[in-house]
Amino acid sequence: MSEDAPPFQTQDHDSLTIPLLSHQQRSINSTSQIVGSIAAVSSSLLVGKAGPMVHTGSCIAALFGQGGSRRYGLTWKWLRFFKNDRDRRDLVTCGSAAGIAAAFRAPVGGVLFALEEMASWWRSALLWRAFFTTAVVAIILRALIDVCLSGKCGLFGKGGLIMFDVYSANVSYHLADVPPVLALGVIGGILGSFYNCLLVKVLKVYNLVNEKGTFYKIFIACTISIFTSCLLFGLPWLVSCQSCPSDASEDCPTIGRSGNYKKFQCPPGHYNDLASLIFNTNDDAIRNLFSKNTDSEFQLSTMLIFFVTCFILSIFSYGIVAPAGLFVPVMVTGASYGRFIGMLIGSWGNLSHGLYAVLGAASFLGGSMRMTVSLCVIILELTNNLLLLPLIMVVLLVSKTVADAFNGNVYDLIMKVKGFPYLETHAEPYMRQLTVADVVSGPLQLCHGIEKVGNIVHILKTTMHHGFPVIDESPHSESPVLYGLILRAHLIALLKKKAFLCTPVQLGADAFRHFSSDDFAKKGLGNVDKIEDIELTDEEMEMFLDLHPFTNASPYTVVDTMSLAKALILFREVGLRHLLVIPKISSRAPVVGILTRHDFMPEHILGGGSHSVVANGVYSWN
Amino acid sequence: MSEDAPPFQTQDHDSLTIPLLSHQQRSINSTSQIVGSIAAVSSSLLVGKAGPMVHTGSCIAALFGQGGSRRYGLTWKWLRFFKNDRDRRDLVTCGSAAGIAAAFRAPVGGVLFALEEMASWWRSALLWRAFFTTAVVAIILRALIDVCLSGKCGLFGKGGLIMFDVYSANVSYHLADVPPVLALGVIGGILGSFYNCLLVKVLKVYNLVNEKGTFYKIFIACTISIFTSCLLFGLPWLVSCQSCPSDASEDCPTIGRSGNYKKFQCPPGHYNDLASLIFNTNDDAIRNLFSKNTDSEFQLSTMLIFFVTCFILSIFSYGIVAPAGLFVPVMVTGASYGRFIGMLIGSWGNLSHGLYAVLGAASFLGGSMRMTVSLCVIILELTNNLLLLPLIMVVLLVSKTVADAFNGNVYDLIMKVKGFPYLETHAEPYMRQLTVADVVSGPLQLCHGIEKVGNIVHILKTTMHHGFPVIDESPHSESPVLYGLILRAHLIALLKKKAFLCTPVQLGADAFRHFSSDDFAKKGLGNVDKIEDIELTDEEMEMFLDLHPFTNASPYTVVDTMSLAKALILFREVGLRHLLVIPKISSRAPVVGILTRHDFMPEHILGGGSHSVVANGVYSWN
Repeated sequence: MSEDAPPFQTQDHDSLTIPLLSHQQRSINSTSQIVGSIAAVSSSLLVGKAGPMVHTGSCIAALFGQGGSRRYGLTWKWLRFFKNDRDRRDLVTCGSAAGIAAAFRAPVGGVLFALEEMASWWRSALLWRAFFTTAVVAIILRALIDVCLSGKCGLFGKGGLIMFDVYSANVSYHLADVPPVLALGVIGGILGSFYNCLLVKVLKVYNLVNEKGTFYKIFIACTISIFTSCLLFGLPWLVSCQSCPSDASEDCPTIGRSGNYKKFQCPPGHYNDLASLIFNTNDDAIRNLFSKNTDSEFQLSTMLIFFVTCFILSIFSYGIVAPAGLFVPVMVTGASYGRFIGMLIGSWGNLSHGLYAVLGAASFLGGSMRMTVSLCVIILELTNNLLLLPLIMVVLLVSKTVADAFNGNVYDLIMKVKGFPYLETHAEPYMRQLTVADVVSGPLQLCHGIEKVGNIVHILKTTMHHGFPVIDESPHSESPVLYGLILRAHLIALLKKKAFLCTPVQLGADAFRHFSSDDFAKKGLGNVDKIEDIELTDEEMEMFLDLHPFTNASPYTVVDTMSLAKALILFREVGLRHLLVIPKISSRAPVVGILTRHDFMPEHILGGGSHSVVANGVYSWN
Repeated sequence: MSEDAPPFQTQDHDSLTIPLLSHQQRSINSTSQIVGSIAAVSSSLLVGKAGPMVHTGSCIAALFGQGGSRRYGLTWKWLRFFKNDRDRRDLVTCGSAAGIAAAFRAPVGGVLFALEEMASWWRSALLWRAFFTTAVVAIILRALIDVCLSGKCGLFGKGGLIMFDVYSANVSYHLADVPPVLALGVIGGILGSFYNCLLVKVLKVYNLVNEKGTFYKIFIACTISIFTSCLLFGLPWLVSCQSCPSDASEDCPTIGRSGNYKKFQCPPGHYNDLASLIFNTNDDAIRNLFSKNTDSEFQLSTMLIFFVTCFILSIFSYGIVAPAGLFVPVMVTGASYGRFIGMLIGSWGNLSHGLYAVLGAASFLGGSMRMTVSLCVIILELTNNLLLLPLIMVVLLVSKTVADAFNGNVYDLIMKVKGFPYLETHAEPYMRQLTVADVVSGPLQLCHGIEKVGNIVHILKTTMHHGFPVIDESPHSESPVLYGLILRAHLIALLKKKAFLCTPVQLGADAFRHFSSDDFAKKGLGNVDKIEDIELTDEEMEMFLDLHPFTNASPYTVVDTMSLAKALILFREVGLRHLLVIPKISSRAPVVGILTRHDFMPEHILGGGSHSVVANGVYSWN
């Protein structure tokens, strides 16, 4: 029989990339994301809605994951089943998939996005859960559109379930069109990596300014907002008016919320093509750029101005306090770049300018975000034409390959700038040259199988670690033996119950008498119990606790001579939070140290000076 | 410095589900799969082409993975970079994705199919490689279609890149259509699991018969083939002739290769609707069933007869010697079932019968194969209409959920019947109650760091294990210490070079003098060196080998008290082939045993009687 079956589950899994917040923060966050995103988009800042939608979806999922919000009376008893790391992480992944699905009405794309970009750990059940979530999103969206068909809900639901739906007619293209498409991919890749590089530089400057206080944050946001407005109202003056085409499918010029031909300051029968792009929402601008049979609508100079404007504005708009997504801005920029190239190529190729815009958007997205399958599916779901698939695939592959030669994907770069401890999947080459012993941090705090309450309190008060190895020593065993790993949260739960023993004896299953599985459920980060809040008398401090029944008796271990690269694979693939290091030569202490995520971060390994760490890391026994 | 950096890579990764064959077998297999599949499909057996295509793709990939075929002069020097387990597995996964992509012209669906159903181990680089492969497939297909547009290649390329392309017009559906769709999903799930159950039973009978010899195999194949032919030519007599509709979009009746209205034995101006389904290829039958504006084309009785026929024939056709796929037969059956239900519902709903056929196919596929995302994308790529997405998602979710209550997915069931040692991802509940020590097999064979050649030969000859722990004992260390794991293939490579030592001394990097990395490259299974082929003199048998430089010095280890479920997670997630078990209490031997895939199989754990295994498994030291 294994000793690894406590009535509550001792998870040693790691959580998602998205930093978990306390539940107040989370509910406030969800609301502020929604409000802020609406404000930012409607103030015509060049920001996307996908980011805030993903964040909102993840926040709501995380709220479920901690059993609802007690403050707002939104708790359900059945939610307690999700109160563990793994389910919470799965929920957050599904939430982010739902966010993408809702933002782009792309349910399959949402699943793949969550899989390719969001989830740091993946299992097949998760694929099916995320699919379920986005299916529900698709159905509810569809139902709402059905309800709104009568026109009571304004512009909501226009265009069916497909957002742009610009290419449902047949597309024909031939082998001769491949070279310009390849060129589009190469340039898109270079532009995308350049975009990432600039974005990171601007974000670093913003970080410096933002540290100075709230006033500076708002100042930047206002400056960018005013600058954007001035630019957008000023730029259309630069281009000349065009006369309306005689065979236009819609009103020309249009005066209203959307439309391809904006009048601006032009005489009757004329339109301003730059205004047609700028005085629309981003979605409508993309639709205009993607639309077919409009090859003569835009001038070359207009396209260039619009591209440069979008490129610059989207970089400066991202880092400000408003919740901002990157997807739509990158897409607009890419579409204008693609259309510009298409106009340059002109009658050389058979493809329409609208198709070049689609491919340009794909190449710029690929160059910046470096996803392949999910971007491909999202673009397909937006344009609703599978005949484009081979071309989109080529463009994405080329732009990703080119861009990968220069820098990393934009999300990784942003996470690095913001300082999130995100663990990369693949091991750096130098990690093959280091052993686990080189980086393990110390001095190590450990508990004995039957430990004095005072010692536990001392350990908890003097360290901030989240897990402690449990050791059995004589008289309970001949030589010191590693029994397992106990979590800080569980130790605090034990201290809180005060079911102490007067003598150091080992209890059996009897020990669970005082506890329910709820006591060990994963708490929301806002209501974690702190060791300082537990009051213990001097008498209680002298009593004992049998930790055996509450210890994870089979934690994952590695030998201290294992190469760091291999330990990282184990840590990352199994999704661990603590990895115990045991000595190779058995005559020494039964445990050398604990590896956590931070020990694998390049900053820690390279910055800490591995040799000095080794000296500290070796735990001296006796 | 880690000791884990030999000049050749010591992989401890596991290979793909698909059993690897020797290279002759593989090249013969590829050819026979292609020929056999053409013969089977053209003899109107109800078999699919997806299975053989996937197999062919995987075989070609595996050929690359072993450096080409020396026998056919197809070797390239650069292929040696793929001569390791991990790259070979990745190649096979990409090959299977390419197979699906080519069979259904569904490149994204192919990637997802490989991901969801094929790959037992997944990493993000693999996603992008598989995507690259299927992109190449899509582009080459597109180019061939482009070349064949002139009509020189017969029917090849008809229908563009989309195989069926039946629903490119707008579809409208409302909330009221959801209940019949849900019902379709539930019944499809039940039918799918029933289908799986019957298929397994028939396969077991076939297995018994096939064991008796080649004659019986061919006899079964002939019987099924003749039975199919008789049935298909006889059945259309059962239904009455229909008069041609006046507004038919194609010729009625049609006499030729394809078409919706087959004349059979009907008077002029009439057609036989069952013959229209039967005397077409499966693809055309699906296209006929999926087509819209043909609600009055088929009779209810025709649909029922066709459904029952397909259901039975596809089960009996699968297990015969001809290479057969399941995808298309399941799809035809599902489409006829869906159309039947659609006709029963009649004017109650707003959906056309063709749409019911699409949804019926989705539900039956979901009920039998239990995939979600990949099936969804494949069906979308076949029908080329994203507006169907929400309905398809609902149907797939419902049918998968219902069917999961009864049995496993059809691929897992078939693998079980065929006896492949496929390791499930999730641990069975009883594995939580067992420790690693309960299942570890013994007696254990091990090598010393510096070992006598005679001992190595003895170990290799008396066991069939693929990996051996290497132990350091006095005088090289104070107490016995586990040094690492050495592979059988590497030991044989060492023996073959005969670079033996006269005295037991430890060499440094000097040991690599005699070897190049090619000596340790993974060989194709057909040309593995055998220990019996190596001739050694008595003198050489008395010499020594220093195994240290050739040993994987940091193998993954678990403590023998770890629960089996946790060890399985490690084994499966990291993709191991050998997992060393070390004792918890340090005073005993440094290694208890080795876990391989077979030790995790339910047959071994439950059949072997875990207690007797324990007794053998403990390796007695000294």
